[in-house]
Amino acid sequence: MSSIESILSDQNPKFKRWKRLATEPRALKKFGATLAEGAHLTEVFGAERGLKVVSVVFSETATEEAKTLGFYTLDQHPEARAFVLAPSLYKHLSPVEHGVGVMLEVEIPTETLPDELDDDLLYLDGVQDAGNAGTLIRTALAAGIRHVAASPKTAQLWSPKVLRAAMGAHAGVRLYENVTVEDLAQSFQGTILAADARGGEDLFAADDYTREAVCWIFGAEGPGVSEEALAKTARRFYIPIEDDCESLNVAAAAAVCLFDTRRRRLA
Amino acid sequence: MSSIESILSDQNPKFKRWKRLATEPRALKKFGATLAEGAHLTEVFGAERGLKVVSVVFSETATEEAKTLGFYTLDQHPEARAFVLAPSLYKHLSPVEHGVGVMLEVEIPTETLPDELDDDLLYLDGVQDAGNAGTLIRTALAAGIRHVAASPKTAQLWSPKVLRAAMGAHAGVRLYENVTVEDLAQSFQGTILAADARGGEDLFAADDYTREAVCWIFGAEGPGVSEEALAKTARRFYIPIEDDCESLNVAAAAAVCLFDTRRRRLA
Repeated sequence: MSSIESILSDQNPKFKRWKRLATEPRALKKFGATLAEGAHLTEVFGAERGLKVVSVVFSETATEEAKTLGFYTLDQHPEARAFVLAPSLYKHLSPVEHGVGVMLEVEIPTETLPDELDDDLLYLDGVQDAGNAGTLIRTALAAGIRHVAASPKTAQLWSPKVLRAAMGAHAGVRLYENVTVEDLAQSFQGTILAADARGGEDLFAADDYTREAVCWIFGAEGPGVSEEALAKTARRFYIPIEDDCESLNVAAAAAVCLFDTRRRRLA
Repeated sequence: MSSIESILSDQNPKFKRWKRLATEPRALKKFGATLAEGAHLTEVFGAERGLKVVSVVFSETATEEAKTLGFYTLDQHPEARAFVLAPSLYKHLSPVEHGVGVMLEVEIPTETLPDELDDDLLYLDGVQDAGNAGTLIRTALAAGIRHVAASPKTAQLWSPKVLRAAMGAHAGVRLYENVTVEDLAQSFQGTILAADARGGEDLFAADDYTREAVCWIFGAEGPGVSEEALAKTARRFYIPIEDDCESLNVAAAAAVCLFDTRRRRLA
């Protein structure tokens, strides 16, 4: 293991890079890297040998737990470098006010949608909110769906906010970004389903739809699934909600639909 | 309708009060009031005659839509007063960067749990995150559950963040705060159910549990349902998730459980 470099100045180029990763959505794409902050993400990503950990970044006030997890990560990822930051710098990188004091800089893996995919898939058709996108990835993994694709208008799936909401689920699913509906329809070999509050079949009363692999499409908060995506859809479902309620949050709706699929498969 | 008072100074007592409501959780309790910001909440709460609207607060840069909704609210709530704020002040009250420019100050209704309740109920046993609490209220209404109670450790259900996440669902459910598990068990006449990732019955494979009214209990992010609450629980369910996935987000788990109840009832 290499030695730990101390960073005290906000003019340090490494710090400036991390600050951009923490705050500028465009910087993620530019540098092809992201920040995974906190004990839980450090534990999950540190143990994940398939990910490239570039740096382990400690705060000077890191807790014993944070140190243990950070050093474990350095052990698993010998190519990673270690840094310790003045707390006044660290706080600019951390979204949490009283965090444990460790984060990882991780290279964003670029996965390409296979030419032919016949495994269950979740497709995010313009989901904008990072918290929702992260919860959707976490729910997909919990429901046994290990492929998540996102349209160009969807939130960046590897942003720090999405990572935080997904609670480490990024390590268990394959993520494909900038996938158009045309690319999706070409690759995916099963049944394409859309969740659409505007109509279709009653999810609970519908005939079995789980004989083939399924691709569930969820649309943006507000407008819902796009016309382009509906055009590629084989079956469209609504969740039977109360009449005086407009809609469910997209992550709640996805939990209902993905676990309806799982219930039918397990039955 | 009274005239519109213009506020330009950050020393104005009304402004100082709203700023505290927007930023200090304790101020909600102290003043017994909250802020509902944006077009959607103004539309829903403006139409809700059962709520007491104290003030309609416009930004000088309010959109036409915001003005229409604000004036409609003043029409429905003749006791409300109208104010217009300099944009430099308004932005301190608004959680949204480019909002439409209208919000309501609303008196928080204080509901007491009935002595005997035999209607479906959702009980939040220490849910801390405001976004989760709001989504839970929204999901409850969508699933037809019109009573939501919260333990003393749960996030304040009428905070601006919870209101935003619930998207107006507050107008359709009765909310009871600071309800202990003992009070709950005394009042509620149906079957108390807990969602518990640590064990119990498989939610999907379980025998029918919906013959009586149900009270679903969901615990805090992380620790889950408390021992005190489990002690009052008749049946405990887990959602059959993938083995290499730790847990679902609490709002996603609740969506699965509440709509499992709804599916069984509709069948």
